Amino acid sequence: MTTGVRRRMGVEERRQQLIGVALDLFSARSPDEVSIDEIAAAAGISRPLVYHYFPGKQSLYEAALRRAADDLAHRFQEPPEGPLGARLLRVMRRYFDFVDEHGPGFSALMRGGPAAGSTTTNAMIDEVRQAAYEQILAHLRVGEPPVRLALVIRSWVSLAESTALQWLDGRRIPRAELELQLVHDFAALCAVSAAYDDEMAAIVARMLADEPVQGPITELLGRLTRLAPPAVPPPR
Amino acid sequence: MTTGVRRRMGVEERRQQLIGVALDLFSARSPDEVSIDEIAAAAGISRPLVYHYFPGKQSLYEAALRRAADDLAHRFQEPPEGPLGARLLRVMRRYFDFVDEHGPGFSALMRGGPAAGSTTTNAMIDEVRQAAYEQILAHLRVGEPPVRLALVIRSWVSLAESTALQWLDGRRIPRAELELQLVHDFAALCAVSAAYDDEMAAIVARMLADEPVQGPITELLGRLTRLAPPAVPPPR
Repeated sequence: MTTGVRRRMGVEERRQQLIGVALDLFSARSPDEVSIDEIAAAAGISRPLVYHYFPGKQSLYEAALRRAADDLAHRFQEPPEGPLGARLLRVMRRYFDFVDEHGPGFSALMRGGPAAGSTTTNAMIDEVRQAAYEQILAHLRVGEPPVRLALVIRSWVSLAESTALQWLDGRRIPRAELELQLVHDFAALCAVSAAYDDEMAAIVARMLADEPVQGPITELLGRLTRLAPPAVPPPR
Repeated sequence: MTTGVRRRMGVEERRQQLIGVALDLFSARSPDEVSIDEIAAAAGISRPLVYHYFPGKQSLYEAALRRAADDLAHRFQEPPEGPLGARLLRVMRRYFDFVDEHGPGFSALMRGGPAAGSTTTNAMIDEVRQAAYEQILAHLRVGEPPVRLALVIRSWVSLAESTALQWLDGRRIPRAELELQLVHDFAALCAVSAAYDDEMAAIVARMLADEPVQGPITELLGRLTRLAPPAVPPPR
């Protein structure tokens, strides 16, 4: 119960406060385990007052998810300057920052718990994926992407999700290593696609042309070249 | 309504028939769009009789999904003979056969519609992923996988899902190309991980040592080598 000492908030201010409190709780534990009572207690208001602002837990969850989705989409934005590998690496760092901050809630959402699998939440997940996809297209300076490039980018976005989820499950690999690995994975998936398709080969060649010798992608190519020769059996 | 001309089925036989009919319908359209009335009509029995065997649509959906999951896990099984690349390619063909047969139902399930996001269906999806993971480990002859190998395999399983879902959305790339690409993606993700980790490098070296010159993985390495040199800028 409120005691009257606290100053009164306006409607929108209170809504925003509740969303923030809820996002913290939904991030720290599986949303199914968070009750309206807890949210009310953390916000310092009564349970009925929470219902005054939000009809139920699901609508508060969706509002919290909306804020998180906007935050994540914002972190994908990166000035189109400098080599692509370095830009992607900075984005991966901010992505893992986000995943780190919202760990249990991110896992619960992406693994599709009961609270998570609604049409609204699925639409928000797809929207963030689409934002990531469009950012990468913009960085590659490709307007109408060939279908194979679209496939590679969307596949890589799902790879980044899957890698982050596995990292959260025990954190047994340093996240900095995974951030770099995902940049490399992107280059590798592009290269695989380019090996059999001329249009993709031209895109990859342009991508690599801007990479500095000290950059993460050129460094990988050097390491792969050293890895490959002894492993490939000589022609018989 | 049954007319009496049809021979009477035993309880288990009828259950199995209903599961088969339901699986066909749930595969051909989003499960949310399939009604018990349709299932009853397709099975040639009355709606109340369906409820005699299954308490509701969700339980029939889960039984159909159980059969599909067992079928898919079965398709992952591949004799441990011959080069790994060729084995993986055969598994990918059977995987795309499955995806092709169950297209709309597979999409609806993996994209998490209202019917799909239950604890039971999520557990079945995870079980199939685990079966795929264990099959690959067995083919690599690795008992206790290093954490980086586990990550690569699970990441690749999710990449295969994401690639299949994108293929279903318009089928704009021939599936044979994607089946081969996924084998290459596996090699590429392993190689990326191996570039920075000695344990992974040893596993990849052993993997490549068994690959024939005509095999899909060696062929890729040749193509990548031809792709890379002109693209890497010379040291300044």
